[in-house]
Amino acid sequence: MTYCVGMMLDRGLVMMSDTRTNAGVDNIATFNKMHTWEVEGDRALILMSAGNLATTQSVVSMLDERTKAHDQRNPSILEAPSMFQVARLIAETLRDVISIHEDAGPRAAAQFGATLLLGGQVAGGPPRLFMIYPEGNFIEASADNPFFQIGETKYGRPILVRAFDPQMSFEKALKLLLVSFDSTLKANLSVGLPFDFQLYETDSLRLGYRSRVQGDSPYFQQISSGWGEALKQALDSLPDFVLEK
Amino acid sequence: MTYCVGMMLDRGLVMMSDTRTNAGVDNIATFNKMHTWEVEGDRALILMSAGNLATTQSVVSMLDERTKAHDQRNPSILEAPSMFQVARLIAETLRDVISIHEDAGPRAAAQFGATLLLGGQVAGGPPRLFMIYPEGNFIEASADNPFFQIGETKYGRPILVRAFDPQMSFEKALKLLLVSFDSTLKANLSVGLPFDFQLYETDSLRLGYRSRVQGDSPYFQQISSGWGEALKQALDSLPDFVLEK
Repeated sequence: MTYCVGMMLDRGLVMMSDTRTNAGVDNIATFNKMHTWEVEGDRALILMSAGNLATTQSVVSMLDERTKAHDQRNPSILEAPSMFQVARLIAETLRDVISIHEDAGPRAAAQFGATLLLGGQVAGGPPRLFMIYPEGNFIEASADNPFFQIGETKYGRPILVRAFDPQMSFEKALKLLLVSFDSTLKANLSVGLPFDFQLYETDSLRLGYRSRVQGDSPYFQQISSGWGEALKQALDSLPDFVLEK
Repeated sequence: MTYCVGMMLDRGLVMMSDTRTNAGVDNIATFNKMHTWEVEGDRALILMSAGNLATTQSVVSMLDERTKAHDQRNPSILEAPSMFQVARLIAETLRDVISIHEDAGPRAAAQFGATLLLGGQVAGGPPRLFMIYPEGNFIEASADNPFFQIGETKYGRPILVRAFDPQMSFEKALKLLLVSFDSTLKANLSVGLPFDFQLYETDSLRLGYRSRVQGDSPYFQQISSGWGEALKQALDSLPDFVLEK
């Protein structure tokens, strides 16, 4: 499993991913699930992946290769004229990679499947955020649905639903994401530290701040232990049930 | 889907269940998923179910019938000498009901399966809480694992993990459960109001307070809207991330 969240704020995009991959609980490893491309002044693209690691690495390698070798039929994501066209190219690449394994039988799609989150901006359009399915289709974030989660989404969802605000600062959004990731971490062994994050500021047309949150980061420790305490206080602030005896 | 939680507190047991059953999103209904038996001064039993409704109703009907007609091979849960033996009887009944459908093929176990939570006390032993699997085996709650969830467990788990305290009052435990149920409700259409709950006070050997929380209950409304606000304040109480630019 995996946990990745992409958020569309008024001031830009915030993308965060965990780094654990596993093939059974006795076979775990740390892999980067966040890939970025940039042409300063023209576009910035951030891609996060959940699912079969071989599939997602293959997709990223193919996208990378096409940015170097010109191909008429499959133009590079650095040349596509809009975010929609970038999403379409990535979705087709994902579907193609999965279909290579179709000979393995009807369960291949599930076994080799992957889901992607794509965020970014291409000059001439606004920042956009897409969720790309293994079938090669995709949906876009909107004001009604301003964030997407992929992977192990359930544990960390309630706090996002309650506390998300499009006017948040990047600093507060990162705090919210760390709380959501920490809740997931506490419940599911297949999601693990460190967490990667990438910011993108609207209309900057270049990648913003990127960093990795380690488990021994004092800030993360503070959030993780502070959140338990803050939740207890939040619960205490509500009136107890009254038993009508 | 379903959501049920059984909690073992120092002062007794708290059991809560939702009431939604569905066969597709266009076919939903309200069913009681909580069944109780009582012999005052001797035992009190509370059973909650998640899974195939035909299976769980059949299990409850069979258990009920045996309390009325004596059967040497399958004694009544009102006669079993301990909570462990009660759990064993119920587990066997569950497995038998599921196995009736085994002719339907290898997927029968999944299709007709159900998971049960059993809480209660039999005179001579302490209160105990069990989770019973469709395979007919079961596990027991302990100080390390003082509560069990069945059904759609993920959304409501983080708050339980963080805020559960065995020394809680029944009133606070009900508040905590309503927050956990509300988080699940907000994320999953297959969990629905009203919620049933049943209390059992240690060594009382009779069922305690039971009631149903309706969606229009002023208390539930207060918890549901108040929790959103309290969560936001909890998040505000933690320091924002600091970007090292």
